[in-house]
Amino acid sequence: MEEQPGGVVDEVCDPRELLELMRAGDQGAVLAVLDRMGTADEVLAFSRLPEDARGELLLLMGPERAADLIQALPEPLASDAFEALEPADAARILERMPSNEQADVIGELDDDDAGAIIGHLSEEDAHEMRRLVAYPDDVAGGLMVTEYLSYAVNARVAEVIEDLGTNAEEYAHYDIQYAYVTDEHGGLVGVLRMRDLLLAPRNKPLRDVMIPSPVSVGDHDPLERLVRFFDENRFFGVPVLDDTGALCGVVHRVAVETAVAEHGDRMYLSAQGIVGGEELRSMPLLLRARRRLSWLSVNIVLNMVAASVIAMHQDTLEAVIALAVFLPIISDMSGCSGNQAVAVSMRELTLGVVRPTEIARTVLAEVSVGLINGLVLGLLLGVVALVWKGNPYLGMVVGGALMLNTVVAVVIGGAVPLVLKRAKVDPAIAAGPILTTVTDMCGFFIVLTFASSMLSRLT
Amino acid sequence: MEEQPGGVVDEVCDPRELLELMRAGDQGAVLAVLDRMGTADEVLAFSRLPEDARGELLLLMGPERAADLIQALPEPLASDAFEALEPADAARILERMPSNEQADVIGELDDDDAGAIIGHLSEEDAHEMRRLVAYPDDVAGGLMVTEYLSYAVNARVAEVIEDLGTNAEEYAHYDIQYAYVTDEHGGLVGVLRMRDLLLAPRNKPLRDVMIPSPVSVGDHDPLERLVRFFDENRFFGVPVLDDTGALCGVVHRVAVETAVAEHGDRMYLSAQGIVGGEELRSMPLLLRARRRLSWLSVNIVLNMVAASVIAMHQDTLEAVIALAVFLPIISDMSGCSGNQAVAVSMRELTLGVVRPTEIARTVLAEVSVGLINGLVLGLLLGVVALVWKGNPYLGMVVGGALMLNTVVAVVIGGAVPLVLKRAKVDPAIAAGPILTTVTDMCGFFIVLTFASSMLSRLT
Repeated sequence: MEEQPGGVVDEVCDPRELLELMRAGDQGAVLAVLDRMGTADEVLAFSRLPEDARGELLLLMGPERAADLIQALPEPLASDAFEALEPADAARILERMPSNEQADVIGELDDDDAGAIIGHLSEEDAHEMRRLVAYPDDVAGGLMVTEYLSYAVNARVAEVIEDLGTNAEEYAHYDIQYAYVTDEHGGLVGVLRMRDLLLAPRNKPLRDVMIPSPVSVGDHDPLERLVRFFDENRFFGVPVLDDTGALCGVVHRVAVETAVAEHGDRMYLSAQGIVGGEELRSMPLLLRARRRLSWLSVNIVLNMVAASVIAMHQDTLEAVIALAVFLPIISDMSGCSGNQAVAVSMRELTLGVVRPTEIARTVLAEVSVGLINGLVLGLLLGVVALVWKGNPYLGMVVGGALMLNTVVAVVIGGAVPLVLKRAKVDPAIAAGPILTTVTDMCGFFIVLTFASSMLSRLT
Repeated sequence: MEEQPGGVVDEVCDPRELLELMRAGDQGAVLAVLDRMGTADEVLAFSRLPEDARGELLLLMGPERAADLIQALPEPLASDAFEALEPADAARILERMPSNEQADVIGELDDDDAGAIIGHLSEEDAHEMRRLVAYPDDVAGGLMVTEYLSYAVNARVAEVIEDLGTNAEEYAHYDIQYAYVTDEHGGLVGVLRMRDLLLAPRNKPLRDVMIPSPVSVGDHDPLERLVRFFDENRFFGVPVLDDTGALCGVVHRVAVETAVAEHGDRMYLSAQGIVGGEELRSMPLLLRARRRLSWLSVNIVLNMVAASVIAMHQDTLEAVIALAVFLPIISDMSGCSGNQAVAVSMRELTLGVVRPTEIARTVLAEVSVGLINGLVLGLLLGVVALVWKGNPYLGMVVGGALMLNTVVAVVIGGAVPLVLKRAKVDPAIAAGPILTTVTDMCGFFIVLTFASSMLSRLT
């Protein structure tokens, strides 16, 4: 097994080796180890270093390489690393990152740290950074880059071609599929396709080569609008205008896709009770415990409310103790069925095939599934109860209760995300607890009321 | 309220209006309604039409516009629509879509339908389609497009520029940031940047302008490798080589980002018990019920296994009926805590900051959080039990059980995704049921064993 490539990667990636070399001050050996790693291995090794060694490693890598690593790190790790660096060193790394990634990292820092780092940038860069950090993450201004080509409308083709050649190094990381053409006030008047530039006579002014009246988005347009824009247009990027109509950045399709992927991950994490959608086990213990508890403590109160329904029917339970075995089953299965309906509603909302107002339509589609699945599951549980205790009435009570409560669960599960969406509450985090509380109360009530109504036949 | 933009959109989007106009045969009016809609509204309206009207609408739109709509539809809706069309009509729409989207739709059809449609393509297109459909969705071959520019290594700059001008219309939807340069056997020998073409003397051969020995991926390389590739490189696309080393397509960064976003959505849906990660309420009722049941039926069996622990301790429960109130609370809360740990492990696996082998490390990080959260939740539940029944021993039993079982739940929840990943089972769908079954059994066992050991003090 030792020859497997996996084994080799594991060895290369051992953070202890890296740490030992760093402690020994053997800079050449550290760089040699890094050279053998891909970015993914670097991320893993970096995340395992003690906090004080992380800043040291970044310095050792040099600003260019450190900038690449920072961009590959999960956001909380990246900002922690920046906080540990001297502001001047952090600024040197920052300068080598694209503007939207700069703003993401700086935006995560507290104001003092951010201010100190920004203080080490050139006046122009500092001004731009303050402007970018002010945008929320999920609007065009927060997703745009300020690295783009723009030329004056009166410039000639030859001047553009000369500029491209002269500044080739600066433009190396730009997306130069398009350049933007502006008037004397910075207003966007056209888009220039590089292919058109290729084919144009060199002395023509840009106004004769550009595509006039280009589409654009506003700097405060939300992510949702950008998703729609790129769904409806095949462009790789869209220019962003500020309130005054001046060109201030470009949002690339890739940035929007990445933001959507992160949104999907956050949805999953929120649904599982990770508030804020972010936790890494390298974070401080008390922070992790506190964040998880904030969700758990709401849930335990809701659970007690639901269990109070059982407490109110203790006499029934005392008479038919077998019911206690079925209560957790009914609670858990109704939760499962309801969560499936929640997931489908979330999916349909994301895909735009249901509107938050269409609650009746959703409920109707769920009732039918709930009836079928409830019938199957209820029969199964009823037969098990009958066989176990030899009492058909017990089977009827628990099977009937599960059937009825499955319908309740899918109806509530299907409707709750739509209702929360309309109320502008994040359905991912809130739908689960609401669902389980209501279906538990309902399930306990149904089974215990059924049972007490035919108590003489159950005992 | 009538003036709100929302109201207008709702009205524009009413599928009944569209259906009436179609039934009346008023083609001009239908197109006028469509003209007022954005793509998102078209998708919503389309999904609401009766199945037989959907094909009719696509024909009415014309192939160019129908192709745009098909690409915006959720995949199951798109393939249903294709099945309903005459193969010749479907082929006409298909021809207007990019090759990777063509393959996605055709790949969803059953073999007969797919064969009939492919039969109407030109021989060359049909050959290419059969080749593309054979790739799984999540390898380079399944994500690549075959619309790219390639030129022979001996061609001159002037020829390329002339070709770009002559075929401008065909290339309109291509990403022409790069062109690929091949030898006489189709082997990839270089990449040509359009900006370099711009600045090159017109009579130079491409071999003097291109970047030689370009990076590439293999057609069977998995999504994971592509994600790493684009993490580590800033390119917007990467050329794909087949087994013989011949250039066969280009994977764009956007296609990889989209595939990752879909993977995140599937993870969320799977975790909520939507097997296969796809359900829309427009699908047939029995299909929806059957798919959901496949997961529910496994769960109900697991639930019964867990509940058998209660059944084995019925005498204890009979003696202290109040315990029945706490069993569902302990079951649900342990599930919540465990699911948080599952979510963090899934997240860390996705981000690459934990390896599937690092179970000890994960367990250690969870035990500490479990102890803190278990202590807080256990104390809370214990005090409630004490206040309710005035019996400190009852508080000790249920509080202690919840504390202990919280630790069990986070340890299992943290470890299970890693174990499943190593066993090559999808952790998203399987982790939840395994977690809840084990923690339920464990929780019921702990509370009922504690209780029976101090039965005299509880009654």
